[in-house]
Amino acid sequence: MRNIKLTIEYDGTNYFGWQVQDNVVTIQGTIEEALERLLGEKITLIGSGRTDRGVHALGQVANFWTKSNIPGDKFKYALNSLLPDDITIVDSEEVELKFHSRFHAIKKRYKYLVYNSEMPRALYRNYAYHFPYNLNIDEMIKAAQHFIGTHDFKAFMAAGSDVKTTVRTIYDFSIVKNKDLIEFSVEGNGFLRNMVRIMVGTLLNVGIGKINAEDVPKIIIEGERKNAGPTIPPQGLYLEKVFYPEKISWLKKLHVLEYKRVF
Amino acid sequence: MRNIKLTIEYDGTNYFGWQVQDNVVTIQGTIEEALERLLGEKITLIGSGRTDRGVHALGQVANFWTKSNIPGDKFKYALNSLLPDDITIVDSEEVELKFHSRFHAIKKRYKYLVYNSEMPRALYRNYAYHFPYNLNIDEMIKAAQHFIGTHDFKAFMAAGSDVKTTVRTIYDFSIVKNKDLIEFSVEGNGFLRNMVRIMVGTLLNVGIGKINAEDVPKIIIEGERKNAGPTIPPQGLYLEKVFYPEKISWLKKLHVLEYKRVF
Repeated sequence: MRNIKLTIEYDGTNYFGWQVQDNVVTIQGTIEEALERLLGEKITLIGSGRTDRGVHALGQVANFWTKSNIPGDKFKYALNSLLPDDITIVDSEEVELKFHSRFHAIKKRYKYLVYNSEMPRALYRNYAYHFPYNLNIDEMIKAAQHFIGTHDFKAFMAAGSDVKTTVRTIYDFSIVKNKDLIEFSVEGNGFLRNMVRIMVGTLLNVGIGKINAEDVPKIIIEGERKNAGPTIPPQGLYLEKVFYPEKISWLKKLHVLEYKRVF
Repeated sequence: MRNIKLTIEYDGTNYFGWQVQDNVVTIQGTIEEALERLLGEKITLIGSGRTDRGVHALGQVANFWTKSNIPGDKFKYALNSLLPDDITIVDSEEVELKFHSRFHAIKKRYKYLVYNSEMPRALYRNYAYHFPYNLNIDEMIKAAQHFIGTHDFKAFMAAGSDVKTTVRTIYDFSIVKNKDLIEFSVEGNGFLRNMVRIMVGTLLNVGIGKINAEDVPKIIIEGERKNAGPTIPPQGLYLEKVFYPEKISWLKKLHVLEYKRVF
C-alpha cells in the first residue's frame, strides 16, 4: 500500500462543495471518479476538511491509499488530464503511510475577498463578495485583533452544527485594502462551519458602524449567534493553505501537536 | 432624442462574443434585450468594436439613442438589475447627440494574461492562457518594441478578414511579469481581427526561442500570416479601455483625429 498526498486548487462555483453527497456533483466525488478511472480501484479520498458550496480552494489537501505503483509526482499529470479544468492538482507526492490529511492538519489559512465599490463587477461575481457601503477599515482592523487567540467561537458557527467543542485558536488575522478590493486573511488551528464567513460578516458590520470594534470580545464571550454579523456569501471564500508538521519529524511531533489541538 | 453612453465590463466565457448573431447568446444582444425591457422600445446598441467569443472586457463602450427621459447616470442601476451578473454596466452618462462609440474611438487598450507555470490553475482557466514553457522575457520585451509605430499589420490578422486597410498604429506595448503571471498591455488606434492574440502568440514564440526578436520587423514587412506566431486562445484577452477625445472639445478635434486614423 502507498499513500499519496494531493494539493488541489478548485473553482467551487459549479460544485455542491467538497464532500460526496447523493445526486449532486462535488469536488471530492469528481476527484474520486478520476482516480477510479486512472487506477481501476475504488478510492476514498480524505480531505483536510469540507468546503461549502461555492467556496474555492487554492491549496486544499487530500490523501488516499492505493496499490498502484505510479510515482507520486506523476499523479498530478495523470489526474489533470482526466479532471474538468475547474479542478487542478497543483502538486502530488508520496507520503508516509500514516499521513492523514484531516487528522494531521495543524493550521489552515483562509482568505476572503470583498469587492467594496458602488457598482458590482462582472468578473468578480463568483470570486468576491460585492459590498457597496463605505467601510472604516481602521475600526475593522481593531475588531479583528479580538479574534486572535484561543476562544470559544460558538457565536461564529452555523446553527445546528454538531461538534465536540467550539473552542478554536486563531493565530493571525489580517486585512489588506488594495483599491476597491479588501482581502481578509485568517489562520487558525481549525474552523467551525461558516466561521470565516461570519467573522468577516461581523467585521463588515463593524466597518459600517453597526457593531463597535470594542464589543467584539463581548460577542465572543456571550456565545450567541444572533449577536455576530451575517453569514456572508461563499464566493468570496478561499481555502488558501493547509499546514502540516515538518515532513521528516512529523510523527514525533504529532503527539504534542495533537495535545495543542482543541478538537 | 437623447444619446446614452455605457461603459461595460463582461465575462466573455458564456457568450458568443459581442456582436448580435442568430441563434446564439451575445453580449450586445443581451444588453439590447435588457434595454428593450427597460424602455419598451427597440434599441440598437453601437459598440466601440467587436470582441470575439470568450474574450472579456473591463471597459467596453457602447451608446444608443432613446426617447426615454431616465437620467443618464441612472441607466447603470436599472440595467444592472435586469442583466445577468456576468455583464455589468460600470458607468452610464448622457452624451452629445453626435457621439458614436465606434467612429469616435481614437485609441483602445487591450490586456492579455498568460499564466506561465508548469501546472494549470483551476481559477485561471477562463481568465488567462496557460503556457507551461520557460520564457525569455527580455527578448520578448525587445521584440515587442518593433510593434510600436505605424505599420501594415497584415501578418497579424485572422485569415479571411475583409478590411480597407491593414495599417494600424501601436502607441505602446508593455510586458510585466508578476510571479507566474505575465501581463501584456497594448495600446493602438485600432486592431485587426485577432491582432492582439497573434502579436502575443508571436512574442511567446520569441520567448521560447522559436522566433528571433530581431526578425519581427521582417515578419511585419513581409506581411505573411504564416511567419507570425499562433492565434492564442481568447480567454486571456481583455478589452481594457476605449479612449475618446476630451468631452468638451471632441467635436472640434474630431476632424483632425479622424485624419490621423488609418481606417
